[in-house]
Amino acid sequence: MLTDPHHDGSPLYRAQETPALGDGVVLRCRTSADVAEVWIRTTQDAEPTFHPCVLREPDGDVRWWEGEIPQHNPVMHYRFLVVERTGAQRWLTGAGVHDHDVPDTFDFKVSVYAPPPDWGRDAVVYQIFPDRFARSAAADHRPVPDWALPAGWDDPIHFERSDPRTASQFFGGDLDGVVDHLDHIAEVGADVVYTTPVFPAESNHRYNASTFDEVDPLLGGDDAYERLSTAVHARGWRILGDLTTNHTGDTHEWFEAAAADASSPQRGYYYFRTDGTYESWLGFTSLPKINHANPALRAAFVEGPDSIVGRWLRPPYDVDGWRIDVANMTGRMRELDINHDVARGVRRTATALRPDALVIGEHNHDASEDVDVDGWHATMNYSGFSWPVWEWLRADDSPARSFGTPVPIPQRTGPQVVSSMRWWAGRLGWQAHQWSWNILGSHDSARIRTVVGSSALHQVAAGLQFTLPGVPMIFAGDELGLEGIVGEDSRRTMPWHRPETWDHDTLDSYSALARLRREQVALRRGGLRWAHVDDDTLAFVREHPEGSVLVCARRAAGPAIRLPLAALGTTGARLLFSTTEGGEQSSTTEGGELVLPASDGPSFAVHRL
Amino acid sequence: MLTDPHHDGSPLYRAQETPALGDGVVLRCRTSADVAEVWIRTTQDAEPTFHPCVLREPDGDVRWWEGEIPQHNPVMHYRFLVVERTGAQRWLTGAGVHDHDVPDTFDFKVSVYAPPPDWGRDAVVYQIFPDRFARSAAADHRPVPDWALPAGWDDPIHFERSDPRTASQFFGGDLDGVVDHLDHIAEVGADVVYTTPVFPAESNHRYNASTFDEVDPLLGGDDAYERLSTAVHARGWRILGDLTTNHTGDTHEWFEAAAADASSPQRGYYYFRTDGTYESWLGFTSLPKINHANPALRAAFVEGPDSIVGRWLRPPYDVDGWRIDVANMTGRMRELDINHDVARGVRRTATALRPDALVIGEHNHDASEDVDVDGWHATMNYSGFSWPVWEWLRADDSPARSFGTPVPIPQRTGPQVVSSMRWWAGRLGWQAHQWSWNILGSHDSARIRTVVGSSALHQVAAGLQFTLPGVPMIFAGDELGLEGIVGEDSRRTMPWHRPETWDHDTLDSYSALARLRREQVALRRGGLRWAHVDDDTLAFVREHPEGSVLVCARRAAGPAIRLPLAALGTTGARLLFSTTEGGEQSSTTEGGELVLPASDGPSFAVHRL
Repeated sequence: MLTDPHHDGSPLYRAQETPALGDGVVLRCRTSADVAEVWIRTTQDAEPTFHPCVLREPDGDVRWWEGEIPQHNPVMHYRFLVVERTGAQRWLTGAGVHDHDVPDTFDFKVSVYAPPPDWGRDAVVYQIFPDRFARSAAADHRPVPDWALPAGWDDPIHFERSDPRTASQFFGGDLDGVVDHLDHIAEVGADVVYTTPVFPAESNHRYNASTFDEVDPLLGGDDAYERLSTAVHARGWRILGDLTTNHTGDTHEWFEAAAADASSPQRGYYYFRTDGTYESWLGFTSLPKINHANPALRAAFVEGPDSIVGRWLRPPYDVDGWRIDVANMTGRMRELDINHDVARGVRRTATALRPDALVIGEHNHDASEDVDVDGWHATMNYSGFSWPVWEWLRADDSPARSFGTPVPIPQRTGPQVVSSMRWWAGRLGWQAHQWSWNILGSHDSARIRTVVGSSALHQVAAGLQFTLPGVPMIFAGDELGLEGIVGEDSRRTMPWHRPETWDHDTLDSYSALARLRREQVALRRGGLRWAHVDDDTLAFVREHPEGSVLVCARRAAGPAIRLPLAALGTTGARLLFSTTEGGEQSSTTEGGELVLPASDGPSFAVHRL
Repeated sequence: MLTDPHHDGSPLYRAQETPALGDGVVLRCRTSADVAEVWIRTTQDAEPTFHPCVLREPDGDVRWWEGEIPQHNPVMHYRFLVVERTGAQRWLTGAGVHDHDVPDTFDFKVSVYAPPPDWGRDAVVYQIFPDRFARSAAADHRPVPDWALPAGWDDPIHFERSDPRTASQFFGGDLDGVVDHLDHIAEVGADVVYTTPVFPAESNHRYNASTFDEVDPLLGGDDAYERLSTAVHARGWRILGDLTTNHTGDTHEWFEAAAADASSPQRGYYYFRTDGTYESWLGFTSLPKINHANPALRAAFVEGPDSIVGRWLRPPYDVDGWRIDVANMTGRMRELDINHDVARGVRRTATALRPDALVIGEHNHDASEDVDVDGWHATMNYSGFSWPVWEWLRADDSPARSFGTPVPIPQRTGPQVVSSMRWWAGRLGWQAHQWSWNILGSHDSARIRTVVGSSALHQVAAGLQFTLPGVPMIFAGDELGLEGIVGEDSRRTMPWHRPETWDHDTLDSYSALARLRREQVALRRGGLRWAHVDDDTLAFVREHPEGSVLVCARRAAGPAIRLPLAALGTTGARLLFSTTEGGEQSSTTEGGELVLPASDGPSFAVHRL
């Protein structure tokens, strides 16, 4: 595996991150000494062309090949044709090495579009569901609205979707509560605060906004948001909003105007039928679908500095970007598909106001057609990260419900989940992959702790979250070992006043992993080369010119693993992080090999090469 | 392999071939008795939804499951989630069965767009390169133009691209020569005559048209074309033209007007730069690229009954459709991509004039993004058929040059080439796959005979061409065993006067295979289920409600193959065709299994189940 031909979009392998149209793009491929010839195949205006690679380092067990392709189109697809001394031909694509001809679907990609901001790739994101995070002193003095069912902080959660209390159970967390706990977020090691919606809405989740024009007074209103935004920025951190572009609530001022008067300008913001009914999200009439084909709606919502998308990037809110809710369905309805057009508009508006704005499109499924061009910068990578990790680590008896499927979470082996990860990586493309969010769980899913069932496996999962390509997004409470069998159940309150319930080992791992990620540029921007995969082990190298690291994750006890030092590109390794005590994860070298010691249970270790 | 879960777009598996928007689409999946549960997963406006399947035949070793999805969008992607009694979960997509999560890229597809015409799927296409096919009596009396180098019918071909004689060597075949030999085409078993371009042009290949307004007088002019078209239609056959939408010749009347006068309307038909130079095909200035973004060009060329695309579908030419040359690059140039728009225009114009018109887009690479919607009906399936077959059957010492790659044709095993075929099938989608052309070679490539090196392997290749999904397209002369190491060399003259050089065994196989394809609807419209694949054997079932067939292709000697009768869905089998003498390919049944006998060399056999 380590001797397989390799390329990815990282600095060791591609000279330019973002070329201009017409530039030459210099690409490198690493192979073993068994390889006699390497070609790059790209397409120009959909016509394949081949470009030779020259051997840059002709000696030793590792060969570096280099070639150049023209950036003829805005997005170039490319792959390598690797010819061995035996004459055997293999293709190398973003999904790995193929011993047969394959379609272009997994080809590497390089585009001319301005990349997402660096802070978005270096980030550790902390997700807060405001009603459940923390109550400030002021919260006790706010009147509770009619729709809300007040709950005590330690009350059990109503989480069945059929239970009307699920959306109305009101715990009263607010934005000043977040400000009060920024030190905790710092301890976890995050530097981006992402809150789920803060708009007024008649629910605890606030995804059914009744206006986009202000912050919910129940959260402290605009002033509280400004205090939070200012405090976050004072730490050198970033703050992200959460905006649903697919629908509003049926109490939204636009919708109320539209429903009251068929001749109102807002009527065209939605899809009303002649009988007065209207299109809505998955048929839930409380969530009417927005019509982005309507120019007035587009102007009000998406386009320009005074649109909703724009206003929040300016004071008093000053968000650094958006997480776009239901990005996948936005602008799509039956024969209509203007999703990319809307996505481009959101990005254009955001980056015009803040050149380093970030736009993450929610997609719990297959975002590969929608990212890595000029719309959403990246996605929430459930498909290419969360589900493979869940499937590899799930406990036999986990009560966690699967997400989006009608069947239990399957159990899969290391080779199976790595196949998934590689195929998704190939589809996403290197850029979108790096900026997409590695999620172990969110307000929409079970908690990782409930999926894996133990602190030890939870820490293995967290290790992967911080070391595989992508940006760790931590749902607040995961770091304490909170549980939840389904999204609504996972929205449990933070047990600030009961630290004895916290899983301090797990919290310490999060802190250490975040520190490690900050210190090791390879973990933020390095390439990914798989080193060893068996049923119970995932080992990989993150490579970067400033230093590479070797990661070894085990879900169970297993024997020592021997890896050739030459193929690792090192003469030895130094332990940087381990979830096990006593240093027994330290590696040794022996006969040209690096030996990762046997493990007597789940473990996670990172070595510097 | 035979017991794997299976689905494809054929009648046994999908109730509607072309649903309307809003219809329910009934889908069936075949599994073994090990399966406990089947779900269909589709996406609606890019949001995944699951739909249960019910068990239709609960007894026996074979289980049929049935479910329904809404045709919510014009193109629906779907796949099956198959849960075994053990709890193991697998996905079934157009590329086969996956034991890990996979992106949507290989999902099955069903679309609402009007399907291509039935005749285009039932066809056997015969490709004629007019200069080399046959000279009528009239040919001797035509003056030879200045650009042409007259050649005797048996002269060797100049075929190196660097040799200026390659394009000007003129053998003088003409359209009445084609009329003279329709009986031969009938003997081969074809029913669609497809000629490469017939426009006037200063080359023997005529892809550099100097006008689209008439047939080259060197071919007999419009009158000869009318005689050919009439004679073809009189047999109940079809005729296809060949049109380059990407570029014209630099002697084209449009280009000459454009080059002569920068203010001419035709100036905008091309991409002139301010310095008077212009964009051209791969930099060949004799082939200036057409600007489809120019409305006047679009009107003259593509849109409406009087456009070039339209005129030829009317008398005197009466073509039944077009093979579009360089379809892949058409309308694509750097930041511009209006390929689908042009393709839609070509199809709209053609089908408005002839509802059963066929439009095949040439793509020697990856057409999967461009077909199966509302543009090109299908493609020339080099990638999913030609190259896998070449790679499986190529002779060690073949002088054939590879097509489009800078390295020799690789040698690959049965499992490797079937992987390629399945991935390409998954990307193309069932509809485009069925209508795409199975090509063993063309005027652009080496001849199959030169690739495989023997009559026996040539007949195996022909067997696959007539029995795998797709439409056989025979480059005239292949049926006689003509050779050619590269496209230009393959344009050899037909040896009408030297029948002693014909490979009559191969000709007989083509005739018999074409007859078999006409008689067995399963070979034209049936599904495809792989039955047995090893290094030297490809065996598969083509399934249809009116009867199924089992195909077994061997590239070398091999032992008997035993297949479970229940999984084949039969109690026995009857030999319909075999390339070996004496009936030794007849199957027997034994202990619930069908036994395909051992083979002492390359062989090809078809059994009716």
